[in-house]
Amino acid sequence: MKAFFQVQDVDAVHALAQELPPLPAEEVPLEQALGRVLARPLTAPADLPGFTRATMDGYAVRARDTFGAGETAPGFLDIVGEVRMGRAPDFSLGPGQCARIGTGGMLPAGADAVVMVEHTRLLDETTVEVAASVAPGGNTLGPTDDAAQGQELLPLGQRLRPQDVGLLAALGQEKIMVSRRPKVGIISTGDEVVPVGSSPTPGQVRDVNTHSLAAVVARAGGEPLPLGLVPDNAGALREATARSLDGCDLTLLSGGSSVGVRDFTSEVFLSFPGAELLVHGVAVSPGKPFLWVRTPSGHLLGLPGQVASCLVAFYLLVEPILERLQGRPALPFARFARVPAVLVRNIPSAPGREEYLRVALRQENGHWLASPLFGKSGLLTTLIQGQGLVRVPKDCEGLDASEEVEVLLFPN
Amino acid sequence: MKAFFQVQDVDAVHALAQELPPLPAEEVPLEQALGRVLARPLTAPADLPGFTRATMDGYAVRARDTFGAGETAPGFLDIVGEVRMGRAPDFSLGPGQCARIGTGGMLPAGADAVVMVEHTRLLDETTVEVAASVAPGGNTLGPTDDAAQGQELLPLGQRLRPQDVGLLAALGQEKIMVSRRPKVGIISTGDEVVPVGSSPTPGQVRDVNTHSLAAVVARAGGEPLPLGLVPDNAGALREATARSLDGCDLTLLSGGSSVGVRDFTSEVFLSFPGAELLVHGVAVSPGKPFLWVRTPSGHLLGLPGQVASCLVAFYLLVEPILERLQGRPALPFARFARVPAVLVRNIPSAPGREEYLRVALRQENGHWLASPLFGKSGLLTTLIQGQGLVRVPKDCEGLDASEEVEVLLFPN
Repeated sequence: MKAFFQVQDVDAVHALAQELPPLPAEEVPLEQALGRVLARPLTAPADLPGFTRATMDGYAVRARDTFGAGETAPGFLDIVGEVRMGRAPDFSLGPGQCARIGTGGMLPAGADAVVMVEHTRLLDETTVEVAASVAPGGNTLGPTDDAAQGQELLPLGQRLRPQDVGLLAALGQEKIMVSRRPKVGIISTGDEVVPVGSSPTPGQVRDVNTHSLAAVVARAGGEPLPLGLVPDNAGALREATARSLDGCDLTLLSGGSSVGVRDFTSEVFLSFPGAELLVHGVAVSPGKPFLWVRTPSGHLLGLPGQVASCLVAFYLLVEPILERLQGRPALPFARFARVPAVLVRNIPSAPGREEYLRVALRQENGHWLASPLFGKSGLLTTLIQGQGLVRVPKDCEGLDASEEVEVLLFPN
Repeated sequence: MKAFFQVQDVDAVHALAQELPPLPAEEVPLEQALGRVLARPLTAPADLPGFTRATMDGYAVRARDTFGAGETAPGFLDIVGEVRMGRAPDFSLGPGQCARIGTGGMLPAGADAVVMVEHTRLLDETTVEVAASVAPGGNTLGPTDDAAQGQELLPLGQRLRPQDVGLLAALGQEKIMVSRRPKVGIISTGDEVVPVGSSPTPGQVRDVNTHSLAAVVARAGGEPLPLGLVPDNAGALREATARSLDGCDLTLLSGGSSVGVRDFTSEVFLSFPGAELLVHGVAVSPGKPFLWVRTPSGHLLGLPGQVASCLVAFYLLVEPILERLQGRPALPFARFARVPAVLVRNIPSAPGREEYLRVALRQENGHWLASPLFGKSGLLTTLIQGQGLVRVPKDCEGLDASEEVEVLLFPN
């Protein structure tokens, strides 16, 4: 079938992505959890640390026994024991008593604070002079200071950072339920495109998109599966797409810059059983020719062939789908930091479509200045020389020099 | 030997790191180059794209033949051929002639611009009406627009991003010379620390640092090698350190919160042949107990035991060393984005040491507001609830509410 389909707004594409169900969960060992997405919230199975710990070396005390103590009026306490690391003390403190304790040690019963060793002077083996008062709780962590049993610590959909991995370790989680990584088939087309290992003759260029798409897919948490170069004809494209659908959740097709390929790609995608055209054209630059066909066995996506456009379109239109499949909100530019900057030149723009312009950044007096790289959008080097992107909204005739804009920084 | 050693400034530690020689280079296939660091600059071996390409579908023309053409005064051109994708055209254009061309096609000799198909009307098989003029070079990429032969495109020490991988592909680089990944042995100590799989009894806590350090090491481009938990005694520590030195470029020891361990760690590290004490104490919080011993077979580093302090100290003091070993400048917080924010509360600080405070961020009227998380620095949850760090400079009594500060954002 060949459907008439209207060019859609970027937001509409994100709304479609947001409706997708996340992929099923799988269990991974803690060592492999970094960067994965939690498939269920992390709730504390027990209090953390679970007991009162010293955060300084010194003496565990009853805080009230130190009240009023100071350099000129020190107090005196009896040392009745020493806390051993990793053991619950087998003694408790009565009035006027204290115990030696190291950082991380468990306070004995009766104690509610720690006096730092720097504020004490040992008089003899059983007596210490205390030259500072300490409030109850001073220099300690309470049993639930890091977490109370049952507390939600990390939400469903959290992408695990190093500190989150640390928290999972602290709570004894050796196996983590995370969303499965989306498998992404990558197909490049174009009769002018040759493999990286070839020497292009005049008129030919090397296959850049397979490699750069594999890189961004991996960074987005997906598993890239490069399927190679496919000649510019419907039969070869259908065969490669069928191979990708057999196992991949998502298929990315880039290239097809020649008119013919653009014409038959949607037909090939729609020839699979149950295929449904979701998007054919988006009111955005780059990304206008974006194509999204859903089939029962996977999503088929068409991207611009020019490499710079292809990468920007990926971050804007494909990464939200990958995010959602991993159980996260379908947001674009998920890995870009955002910084405010002042434009140094006008950016003219035609209303009616969103635009993403590459910019170079430099710092002046502690503020960022953004220069639009107008150059030719097919140039790979605009992604190398630039540091980020500036969005020109849809219903806007451009942005003015000296206007403050948000720059989306290319991830490292 | 036991050396007297003065507490050093953070900058002095970075200066020491900057003097280290990078690790030897190794060759990796293009598919494994993402995130690695270039061991030699990338110079274009040939022009890119190497020929003049169309960036639009339309007609290759001699620009001067279109001058003066417009909606009301169209020009007429003879169609003398069609450019096939991936082939050098075997014809050339004379005055008044044009050729069909698709995006990415190579311009025939004589042509110097492309008229977009939208600005033309086909009159018959050999005549096209042109309703717009085009400047020389219009809708084309020149032979050296992406790169000229011999041009340096990526510097030595570049950490390869997806677009860099694309550029390497475009230039036919199948094998890339990158710095070897630093191997990093990770040792945790502390008699109160038990493995993640254990159920801690009162007084015990699980081993968090091994897991969170492995995560940040991997993110910093290193190869983490967890060596497990080591009891708090000099013999066991020496044995584990020797194991790590046998193969690892760097050894990270964390824990040793008890007084005894702190006392013997530097002695154990210095007991290896040729060992040299570089740093013993840094004027910074967290990170004060940082220890750096260099031996002929590797660097031995001691980090604070409290997990939150340990991670911040890693980013500040260890990552610069890992960056340098990979051939990059020894800069801290290499993967943190920096955003300006306004403080919502005073941050008091003692002069004489730098301080890094965790902050929570929220947005208000398009600006970021940073609230310091004063909490207890041992708490892991300050790294979970916070979004970044604010630096309080060394010779400063603190920062004032409503002051603008730079926030270092925790990487995702």
